[in-house]
Order: sequence, then C-alpha cells, then structure tokens
Amino acid sequence: MTALADIDTPAVLVDLDVAEANIDRFQDYCNLHGFRNRPHIKTHKLPVLARRQIKVGAVGVTCQKISEAEAMIAEGGVDDVLLTYNVVGSAKLQRLHALAGRVTLSVVADSAAVVAGLGTEFAGASQPLSVLVECDTGAHRCGVATPTAARDLATIIDRTDGVRFGGLMTYPPVGSTGAVQGFMSEAIELCEAAGLTVERITSGGAPDMWRAHEAPLVTEYRTGTYVYNDRSLVERGVCTWDDCALTVLATVVSVPDTGRAIIDAGTKVLTSDLLGLDGHGHVLGRPDIRIDQLSEEHGRLVCDGPIGLSVGDRVRIVPNHCCVVSNMMDAVVAVRGTRVEGDLAIAARGQVW
Amino acid sequence: MTALADIDTPAVLVDLDVAEANIDRFQDYCNLHGFRNRPHIKTHKLPVLARRQIKVGAVGVTCQKISEAEAMIAEGGVDDVLLTYNVVGSAKLQRLHALAGRVTLSVVADSAAVVAGLGTEFAGASQPLSVLVECDTGAHRCGVATPTAARDLATIIDRTDGVRFGGLMTYPPVGSTGAVQGFMSEAIELCEAAGLTVERITSGGAPDMWRAHEAPLVTEYRTGTYVYNDRSLVERGVCTWDDCALTVLATVVSVPDTGRAIIDAGTKVLTSDLLGLDGHGHVLGRPDIRIDQLSEEHGRLVCDGPIGLSVGDRVRIVPNHCCVVSNMMDAVVAVRGTRVEGDLAIAARGQVW
Repeated sequence: MTALADIDTPAVLVDLDVAEANIDRFQDYCNLHGFRNRPHIKTHKLPVLARRQIKVGAVGVTCQKISEAEAMIAEGGVDDVLLTYNVVGSAKLQRLHALAGRVTLSVVADSAAVVAGLGTEFAGASQPLSVLVECDTGAHRCGVATPTAARDLATIIDRTDGVRFGGLMTYPPVGSTGAVQGFMSEAIELCEAAGLTVERITSGGAPDMWRAHEAPLVTEYRTGTYVYNDRSLVERGVCTWDDCALTVLATVVSVPDTGRAIIDAGTKVLTSDLLGLDGHGHVLGRPDIRIDQLSEEHGRLVCDGPIGLSVGDRVRIVPNHCCVVSNMMDAVVAVRGTRVEGDLAIAARGQVW
Repeated sequence: MTALADIDTPAVLVDLDVAEANIDRFQDYCNLHGFRNRPHIKTHKLPVLARRQIKVGAVGVTCQKISEAEAMIAEGGVDDVLLTYNVVGSAKLQRLHALAGRVTLSVVADSAAVVAGLGTEFAGASQPLSVLVECDTGAHRCGVATPTAARDLATIIDRTDGVRFGGLMTYPPVGSTGAVQGFMSEAIELCEAAGLTVERITSGGAPDMWRAHEAPLVTEYRTGTYVYNDRSLVERGVCTWDDCALTVLATVVSVPDTGRAIIDAGTKVLTSDLLGLDGHGHVLGRPDIRIDQLSEEHGRLVCDGPIGLSVGDRVRIVPNHCCVVSNMMDAVVAVRGTRVEGDLAIAARGQVW
C-alpha cells in the first residue's frame, strides 16, 4: 500500500473524508434553510465528487466552461447543468447546443447581444433554452446594473425564439447578502409587473455561504470552494484548518539560512493567487512560517527564529485559493487521513473552453 | 486554412516568426561575447523550439524538472541537460540516474545533504555526475551564501564518490552583474587554491540578458523568457511589444458599462503573476486599457474613457509573465503573423516532477 511518504512532491492531496464532510455539511445547511444547492465544479473538476454532491442532494451543478460540463455529464452522472457564463461565438454556441439535448441546461446572459447569439443558435429547437439574466449586485464584473435593466433583458429573452426566461442570477461580492435581497426584490416586482414569472433566483460565493439564508429570495446557491476550503476562507473565519481538504505536499530542498527554507512547490502548483492575503499559503502546524516568495518551481519559507527544517523534510500547505491549485496538475492524490487511495485525474483542465 | 478568426478563445498564440527571431538574436549576442547559451526550456516546454535553439548554437538546455528534461530528450533531440535544481528524494534521484546514461547531464547542489543524496545514487556509476555548486549572489533563494562556502562544498563534491565538481551556478537578482562577477572571482580563487578547477560558471535571468557580458567570468548564460518575451521585460526596457511572441487571444463577452469590458481570459490562462507590475497584462494596441482584475475565467478591462469594445470583439494580450502562461494549456496555437500553423502540445505540464 502506498503511504504518504511514498508520494513524490510537489503533490496536490485531497482528503476525501474531509471533502465529503464539507459536502454533507453545506447540503444540510441548504436543506435546513430550504434552498437548492448547485455546487460549482470548477473547484474540483472531479466527476467522483460531483457524483457525491448530487447523491446527497444537489439539484445539479454549476460550470464555468463547456468542457467542464461535458466532463461532468460524461463521467459524473450529472443531468442538470447551469453554465454561469455569457456564451459568445459560433464554436461555443454549437458545443452548448450539443449539450442541450443531453441534460437540463441553463445559461446566463447580461446583454441583448448575448441573447441574440443564443436565439440564433437555438431558434427552432424542440425545447427552448433556459436563459437567466445575470445581475450585478456590486461585484462589477458581468451583469446588468439595475433591476430595471434586468426586467428589460428578461423581456427581450421572453420575446426571443429558441430561448425562454429562466430567472435571475448573481455573483455578489463578499458581505452583500442585503444588496442581493434588495436588488432581487425590486427585480421580481418589475418582472412580475411585466407579466414575467421569475422561477429561480441563483446566487453564490463561498465566503458568504453560511449567510446565504440572509437573502431569502434566493432559491438556489452556488459555491465551489466549500468542497475543499482554503486559506482565504480560514482567514475569513468561514472554516478551520481541519476543514481544508486540499493541501500541497512539498519537500524541503534547501535550508540556506537559519530562518529560511526552500521547498519544491512554486507558482506552477500553488499559483500566485493572493485573494488579498499576505504570503502564498499556510504551512500546517507551523503558523510561525510565512511563504513570502514563489518562483515557478521554488517556494521560500521564512520565519523570525530558527526554521527548524532540514533538506528532505516534508510540509503540507493549505493554499490561498484551492480552485486554481487543483487546475495545475494532471491528477490529485486522493487520501483519507494517512491512507493513500490513489490518483484522481482532473477533468477538463488545460482546455480552451 | 484556419484563420485567426477561427481560433476559439481563450487561446495562447505563439508567433513562431517572432520566437525564432528572438532565439537567433540572443544567440548572436552570445556568440559576439564568447559565452555559451543554454536556454531554459521551462518557458516554452516545446520540443520544436528546443530543436531550433540547439540548431542555431545553444550548447544544450536548462531544465527545472526531470519531466521537462525527459520530454526534451525524447522529442527535442536534446543531448546536453543542466538541471538547475537540488534533486532530493529517492524517486527523483532514480529518474535523474536514468537520464544520466542518455545525455550529458549536470545538476546543482547547495548543501552537503544534497551532495550526499547524489553520491549515494551515483556511487559506482561508470561516469561521475557533474555537480555544480549553486551560489547565492543576492536573490536569497537557494545557494551557498559566500565564496568560502562555495569552495567548501566544491571540496565535498570532489571527495564524494559518484559525482565530480562541475563548476559554479547562480541565478542572480536583477541588476547584479557586478555582484556575480565579484562573487565568482573570489570563489574561483578559493577553489583554485584548494586544487579545484572551475570548468564552468553559469549565470542566468532574462531581465539582464543583454548585460550578461558585464560579468565576463560567466562562461554560460541561461534564460528562458527571451524566446517569447513578455510585459515584464517590455516594462523593464529589455524588448518591445513587437518582440513578444506569446499572446493570449480573448473574446469580449460583456460590456456592462461604458468604461468596462469583460473577456473570457482569467487566472486559468493569464495567471495571477504580477512580477511587480500593476494589472494583469497589456492589451495590444490599447495602452489606455488596464486589466485591473482577474477571476478564474473572466478578465476585467477598464479605461478612463469609453472602452469602445463590443461583445464578440477580440483582443490580444501580452501577459505579465509568459513562462507560466504556456504552462496553463494543453496546447498553444502556432502562428506566423496572421497565418495559423496549428496546435503545438505543451510537453511536461501538469506533472509532479
């Protein structure tokens, strides 16, 4: 049997016991508060975890790219996909259309131009495609800016052949459950006054996932990071280090100075994502150490006192942002505590779309 | 024939005309100043470009991981590899040993512990492994801290069965050609006084590549980024936008406000590497635009005036750091100007080591 000590580094470890507990805990929360759970699989890209999410009660999954949806449908047994992305261009539209016959499919749009593209592709389809209006509730990424604009775009969708108005979607900034509730309340009123039914309101984001019930108009919640958790969520008080299912196992390759050690994990596994944090991850059991610098294949660990590490020692790191780390490797290593279960291939990474 | 307009986005484009000109230009510079060129292939991970580098005069290649070396030997026709990494642990040592019989191989070490591991693995080998002492000339990553420590480690290598002292290696910080020259001068003197011949001094780094001749004790130069160039090098005055061979092609998917557009390229292709810069890349032809924010699959473009982009428009972006971008995709798209040559698979990405 493979032991942790036999795994070559740098390796991305996923503790399935912890991941499953995370999946179950958030599903319980969704059940308690009566909203649907639609996990974002961009975090794990693992069909086996999508299957677990569906099994315990998720209504379907959220994807960010068509290749992710294709993988989850083919290998994850998923039959309901929300693609939270403006699908633009004939290549992507054709791939989207090919999915439509295989699963319950919905997408979003935030402009008449995107709706027009969807309408042209799906005109004459046996089942109209469900299109949700993406609303900007403060993140200032995509999304229509006002409830009035949401109603106007919903009306355009409603009048476009091949598609139907499927509800409202938002990806709010942290700490804005109140803004979401306010925007959606006004948008529902406007849509209903225009004769449109808002059958679904979907919101998301891991940092506020335990506050999702503070926006009770939301009927469906999307979070990806909850399956693994990461340093950004621990630092925000959303979870504990023990809840972090994804870690990077690295080997000390140099201890050039008393307060400095170099490990074989750099940006090509930990990535440069900071998410507003200082440093590049948390060394488990060593809160005195900072990962103050990464180059591509080196990570620099520093501390104020003697670092107490030797060449060949191993450390486990909770990365700042788990979603981008699992995307860096062909495979993660599944473990349960100290037991190694084996490699799990990451689906749909390195794909254009 | 495929046209640029037919390429789905986000795509990593490599203009081979530009890359080849970059390769030739730096080789000419090395020839002019009489030092050997040993390009770092971590930047491109493309056997076809390694072949070009060797053809025009590179003495071999530099790799950071064994998987890179394996790919370049198998597909790139490479027969001389310097692995600029402390090789630690039996799994890596065995893979290193397997390479030794196939090519002229050298590695580095910066501690007696690393030398001991190499010695144990290579004891009794028909040809001793060439081991260079890594020297810290100011970057404070790996490396022995002083010329005296370099001499001491060289002596240990010289006395260890299975390995032989192969010279001195450094990866200096930007702007330190003088420090390199000073360190090496002293180290050579100490080594020679101890009866050791310093057969090779290898330094590297793209930002100072046109100043390499300012440290004339260096016999061999290593740079990876020069093959593509990137925003970090343009901003440092090392090259021009026209010299940038690698670009990310992206599609505008949303224009939610007059001064803001969203593209389908985020951290999963551009990465979060900043290299000290503000923003996440340069939109070619639009110096007024800043890429002020990335999420995984979205990039946010902002400017002070009207942004003048529409849904479906395409932009080409010079990333901050090209080396990490080519590592994000299964394949890059080779182009020559507006002519599309086709996909080139990226070798040895997503590998543990």
